[in-house]
Amino acid sequence: MKITFVLHILGALLICLSLSLLTPIPFALYFHESTISTFAESALICLVSGLVMMKLCAGKKELSLREGFAVVSFGWLFFALFGALPYLLSGSIASPLDAVFETMSGFTTTGSTILTEIEHLPKSILFWRAMTHWIGGMGIIVLSLAILPMLGVGGMQLFQAEVPGPTADRLKPRIQDTAKLLWGVYVILTVAETLLLMAGGMSFYDGLCHAFATLATGGFSTRNASVAAYDSGYIDAVITLFMFLAGVNFSLHYYALKGRVGEYFRNEEFRFYLFITVGATAVLMWFNQGVVYESVIDNLRYSAFQTASILTTTGFGTADFELWPVLTQYVLVFLMFIGGCAGSTGGGMKVARILLLFKHGLVQVYRLIHPRAIKLVKLGDQAVAPEVMQSILGFFALFMGVFVAASFLLAATGMDLVSSGAAVIATLSNIGPGLGTVGPVDNFAHVPAFGKAVLVLCMLLGRLELFTVLVLFLPSFWRR
Amino acid sequence: MKITFVLHILGALLICLSLSLLTPIPFALYFHESTISTFAESALICLVSGLVMMKLCAGKKELSLREGFAVVSFGWLFFALFGALPYLLSGSIASPLDAVFETMSGFTTTGSTILTEIEHLPKSILFWRAMTHWIGGMGIIVLSLAILPMLGVGGMQLFQAEVPGPTADRLKPRIQDTAKLLWGVYVILTVAETLLLMAGGMSFYDGLCHAFATLATGGFSTRNASVAAYDSGYIDAVITLFMFLAGVNFSLHYYALKGRVGEYFRNEEFRFYLFITVGATAVLMWFNQGVVYESVIDNLRYSAFQTASILTTTGFGTADFELWPVLTQYVLVFLMFIGGCAGSTGGGMKVARILLLFKHGLVQVYRLIHPRAIKLVKLGDQAVAPEVMQSILGFFALFMGVFVAASFLLAATGMDLVSSGAAVIATLSNIGPGLGTVGPVDNFAHVPAFGKAVLVLCMLLGRLELFTVLVLFLPSFWRR
Repeated sequence: MKITFVLHILGALLICLSLSLLTPIPFALYFHESTISTFAESALICLVSGLVMMKLCAGKKELSLREGFAVVSFGWLFFALFGALPYLLSGSIASPLDAVFETMSGFTTTGSTILTEIEHLPKSILFWRAMTHWIGGMGIIVLSLAILPMLGVGGMQLFQAEVPGPTADRLKPRIQDTAKLLWGVYVILTVAETLLLMAGGMSFYDGLCHAFATLATGGFSTRNASVAAYDSGYIDAVITLFMFLAGVNFSLHYYALKGRVGEYFRNEEFRFYLFITVGATAVLMWFNQGVVYESVIDNLRYSAFQTASILTTTGFGTADFELWPVLTQYVLVFLMFIGGCAGSTGGGMKVARILLLFKHGLVQVYRLIHPRAIKLVKLGDQAVAPEVMQSILGFFALFMGVFVAASFLLAATGMDLVSSGAAVIATLSNIGPGLGTVGPVDNFAHVPAFGKAVLVLCMLLGRLELFTVLVLFLPSFWRR
Repeated sequence: MKITFVLHILGALLICLSLSLLTPIPFALYFHESTISTFAESALICLVSGLVMMKLCAGKKELSLREGFAVVSFGWLFFALFGALPYLLSGSIASPLDAVFETMSGFTTTGSTILTEIEHLPKSILFWRAMTHWIGGMGIIVLSLAILPMLGVGGMQLFQAEVPGPTADRLKPRIQDTAKLLWGVYVILTVAETLLLMAGGMSFYDGLCHAFATLATGGFSTRNASVAAYDSGYIDAVITLFMFLAGVNFSLHYYALKGRVGEYFRNEEFRFYLFITVGATAVLMWFNQGVVYESVIDNLRYSAFQTASILTTTGFGTADFELWPVLTQYVLVFLMFIGGCAGSTGGGMKVARILLLFKHGLVQVYRLIHPRAIKLVKLGDQAVAPEVMQSILGFFALFMGVFVAASFLLAATGMDLVSSGAAVIATLSNIGPGLGTVGPVDNFAHVPAFGKAVLVLCMLLGRLELFTVLVLFLPSFWRR
């Protein structure tokens, strides 16, 4: 592996980042905020750094597999480092670690925050905060597919690196075209949600920020009370719908926009995702009815919102579910591990993996009494190749291993058991809020510095599906 | 599958149980207790039931695979039902469900109790309670290997059913001989521990009961305060040592008794088990030193005891670890999932499985950058066959699935999150005490009836390594 090739691409990515750092400036102008120089300076630093890296380090047409992995992992890391500049330069966040935490939380579409008073910040800074979500959200599927090929990087190996998950319905045509198509779907959904939110009384600014955070399954809001601040059934319904959509494989949306709506239901992962959403909402409503909510409509509104918010790993809040019956919290914790569909912007282990794990377990039991039967695990009509199944099972084992190890490190900082575990799953599954002292109405400000660093790594590990980052820790990765 | 063949064997097993029900009678005589008729009646009911079943249902020389599974699962269930008779007939436990809970906890060597006042019970009843441990403990490896072949049942398929875990060092000679050898090891260790405990001031009765509970990794004590009641560093040390030994693959002890002590260290699972024990003790000592214990000797004494007790899934207590620093509790919860070595009397997922899961995860990461390399997971010098690895991974997924589902059912009875999860892992891993309201100084009496039934199933599932029981739930198991 040649580190110079990697740095060359990272330089190019920084130049792209510098452009996106200019987007909050119109809002700074509109709201008469003094952050114009903040963003201009941040963009300049990124631009110069990027140019220097590109000049000093030679690039090449095709990246090797290892270089591909390095670009993906370090790309996200560089974005989190340089994307933190506006927070620091504007004085919105004093500590560099906190600023990186907030930015990594943005670009990994996690939504965990260290801010205690969101509404005190300049609106242009909060727009940048939402923007990190939007860039990161589709980034996982599209960004490096549309931009890196332009830089002469072969796309396919990176597509593997970005989405090692089971993607049965991967679109077939050329990667670069695919990227553009999915990007189009993403933009259309973002525009649609913004308009629908504005129809419910939100300003253009609030609508756009919340649409960014929804479609990316991020969860940063512009309000302290998150979506609860609007106290509108209509807005809750719109956001619930779009959170659900953001958790679906985007290639299915593409087919639907082409008129092939039936593809949704031909997709086994989607059917299981729908089943979990409806099932979990029903269980939440069952236990909340008469205890937390008297009206069935209210119950549906809040139960469905919380289900979609946690399952899709968005993390918006309209209710403090820590005040709900214990069983509903249990369901929500379970959803935290599942996450969205493969090929969506959602995090977690992914619905398809959970489905395949369950099927694999059943096949193992079946084999005990039919030892000579050959029974493969299927997803839809397609048999899952043994190597893919091995990889999924390995992912599950590693996911639980990382969860245990990171929770241990958090507990070592003195946090209680529930909060440690919840903080880790909230970041590892890219959700946002957890339980305990990092619950839906709390934040991560109080987590000790060492714990924050661990959680930043968790966000990155979770977003890049573990393997992509863990591979960098193999000694043999760096050899030769 | 012919259910009559299964009932025939179960009848024979009940006749064996009736004999073991006579063993507490000498203690009833010695302590002048009025429980002689209790045990005589219990034994008679078992004997008559067993004879009727054997008469009414025809047997056969060789059992099919399915019949083997049915014998194992229903065998444990029948023992839990009929073994509960002394509790009910003596009035020691009023509720039949509670009595079955206590007996299942005994035969599965779990050690969870619904008793609130242990020392009020007749000593002969407490002896029976310890006896259920002793029978169940070696039962998992030996009992049905020594008895069922005598009944003309082919042993090998049952050995598979009993121990589906990875047992690389399975002894080679004929199963029946193996069973007798391991039974010998078990008896020798039990006698040795009894004598050592008596040397520390325990009565023969107390020594024997605690040796039964230790070697079986059960955890039932004859005292309310468990082993803490003796408040002796010597006794703590003896029990710590024997708990550790009970968590080791018994075939290694057999080799050691034959003079081949080096086999311990040639066994990779043993080395990892030793590493976990020493490592966890060190971590516990690190966080307890100066906080809970001032003296290093005291710290070692209590930290090592609790580590061995939880890791081997015994569940004896000498300290209330819920008062320890949060991080030590985290370590103990982690140990709860691991359990003892394959081929030991310990429960949990087993050290070998955890080790192989970890290795499998590493291999998956390695494969990403060496996609064409063929790298198999090894245990010791032996490559693990892909089917075995698939089975282990399936076991892990099912274990977590059962843990989640059962915790959900417990939480549905109104228990809090931590206690629900802890109660399930405490029974599923056959440990005994958990955390929260089922912690080391609490008991399971307060768990609602439905929750107790779920936990009884968890004990059985965990003890028979999931597959053996789950296979009975497949519709195709009962077809034809």
